[in-house]
Amino acid sequence: MPEPAAQSAEPTLLVLDADPPPRLGKLAGRANIVHADAHTLGDQLPYADVLLVWDFLSDAVRRAWPGEGPRPRWVHTASAGVDHLISPELAASDTVVTNARGIFDQPIAEYVAGLVLAFAKDLPGTLELQRRRRWQHRETRRVAGTRAVVVGSGPIGRAITTTLKALGVRVALVGRTARGQVHGQDELDLLLPRADWVVCAAPLTDATRGMFDAHAFGTMQPSAHFINVGRGALVVEDDLAEALGKRWLAGAALDVFAEEPLPSGSPLWDVPDLVISPHMSGDTVGWRDDLGEQFLDLYDKWANGEPLPNVVDKKRGYVHSHD
Amino acid sequence: MPEPAAQSAEPTLLVLDADPPPRLGKLAGRANIVHADAHTLGDQLPYADVLLVWDFLSDAVRRAWPGEGPRPRWVHTASAGVDHLISPELAASDTVVTNARGIFDQPIAEYVAGLVLAFAKDLPGTLELQRRRRWQHRETRRVAGTRAVVVGSGPIGRAITTTLKALGVRVALVGRTARGQVHGQDELDLLLPRADWVVCAAPLTDATRGMFDAHAFGTMQPSAHFINVGRGALVVEDDLAEALGKRWLAGAALDVFAEEPLPSGSPLWDVPDLVISPHMSGDTVGWRDDLGEQFLDLYDKWANGEPLPNVVDKKRGYVHSHD
Repeated sequence: MPEPAAQSAEPTLLVLDADPPPRLGKLAGRANIVHADAHTLGDQLPYADVLLVWDFLSDAVRRAWPGEGPRPRWVHTASAGVDHLISPELAASDTVVTNARGIFDQPIAEYVAGLVLAFAKDLPGTLELQRRRRWQHRETRRVAGTRAVVVGSGPIGRAITTTLKALGVRVALVGRTARGQVHGQDELDLLLPRADWVVCAAPLTDATRGMFDAHAFGTMQPSAHFINVGRGALVVEDDLAEALGKRWLAGAALDVFAEEPLPSGSPLWDVPDLVISPHMSGDTVGWRDDLGEQFLDLYDKWANGEPLPNVVDKKRGYVHSHD
Repeated sequence: MPEPAAQSAEPTLLVLDADPPPRLGKLAGRANIVHADAHTLGDQLPYADVLLVWDFLSDAVRRAWPGEGPRPRWVHTASAGVDHLISPELAASDTVVTNARGIFDQPIAEYVAGLVLAFAKDLPGTLELQRRRRWQHRETRRVAGTRAVVVGSGPIGRAITTTLKALGVRVALVGRTARGQVHGQDELDLLLPRADWVVCAAPLTDATRGMFDAHAFGTMQPSAHFINVGRGALVVEDDLAEALGKRWLAGAALDVFAEEPLPSGSPLWDVPDLVISPHMSGDTVGWRDDLGEQFLDLYDKWANGEPLPNVVDKKRGYVHSHD
């Protein structure tokens, strides 16, 4: 690993990664690239002009940021969510934070559509019956004409909405506050009891943490399914397990968890009618290349002094859009 | 069971059923309804004006039809396929045959879309890993931009095409012969090698029986998936099992089989990367009501001497449309 090169003529790009990111070779001669891990990050932060958070599951930045010394002027995270990243000191600083807005929208929308159809057609039941060599005809559900509530009005929630609508689903999109076609979070008590599908794609903030709890699950229909592709801490996992056990709702799928990887001893693995996947809903073949290309585009803009897109509202905890 | 009422003033409606169909009570006073099973059908056929084949998996009609005596003027089957039904004698007769065209289109289209997404996102793999409590991240596939070949240009194949296109899939629709946007069956050798998804929704006829055999599977991509929602005998099941074993294609889903129910001793249950479902792709909640209503509509037309829709071309083995 090269030493921090404080005197370099090129900006120092500090990369927090487990696996090295692709495409950064294109910055040869234009950036002094230094790699860090969770242990070395704190020592290296004062020497970095730019921090690329490639290991987007790590909370090393939030833990290291309150330390001493100067700080990077720009932090980019190869993720949509920034909850793992922003310490109070970073939020209060002048450092610009950008995210991977756009990369995951369509993949996650397809993933959610796949789960909705799989639940409607009882594909998990079919696979379980196949294991037991049982031919057991069931009537399945139409998806067209059903109702979905999608919580999270950013680009991911909007892509989910578009894809579900293409399948004939009637979708209510819910954001922090009502605006235009978007419902406010305070309308959820009215929307959840009518939903066949409740999809969570919200950012994790103080206003959304634990929002899917016993109260929320208690208002859902017994035939409803819940899908979380946002962040694990949006859901009170014990409440979901209990709600499924009591048949308050028909099934659920979690792609994200309060603790990741989900420990092999977690009781969640065995909860009936719960599908567990390893935080992969947005990760289609080529996703790391796409994230690398996106960062290169942003780096070009930053180096040229142009305004950066995808700037995160550090107080709100997500990219705020007015459209 | 009432005796055949040859002298009744009302037309005699003979119903071949395992479970009695819904809605027929509405024909009280307008039809003399007589129920038959596979054993009594032959004796009752000469006394029937109309035959409703409600037990659409039975081949009792094809076996009974060559017998003696007069025959119903109209046969309706509560199914899209008529392969189980039409004997050479029925094909040569003046009897009109109608089918359940339209009832299954959208449900089957959703079912196929669900399988395509489930394969793209490796939902079967996710469920298997969950059973083993294993957190194993994988990269999944985008569906938008992939290519599908849909074989069967009737309403079901068209609905599948529309739904897959709504998900961004590029679809080539294949019929018996090329016309307009529809490719001919003789183009399959060119189309299959480029397909990510091959969907079979064709009628079972002499021209289509066994069309998915070792040759067809051998032309597919190793990354391709095959889905059959048509009839079991369209596929040479042993060839599919062998092709999957040799990784000629990545996976398959069969909803229909040469023998149904699939015997519990069939080796198909255990073929890797093969999803087996019990002929249910079109059977959404309310489907029996929908089939009953459709028959009542046709009965009204028939009783009034109006032309019947959904008339099957008995020589071709499906409803022939020119649109």
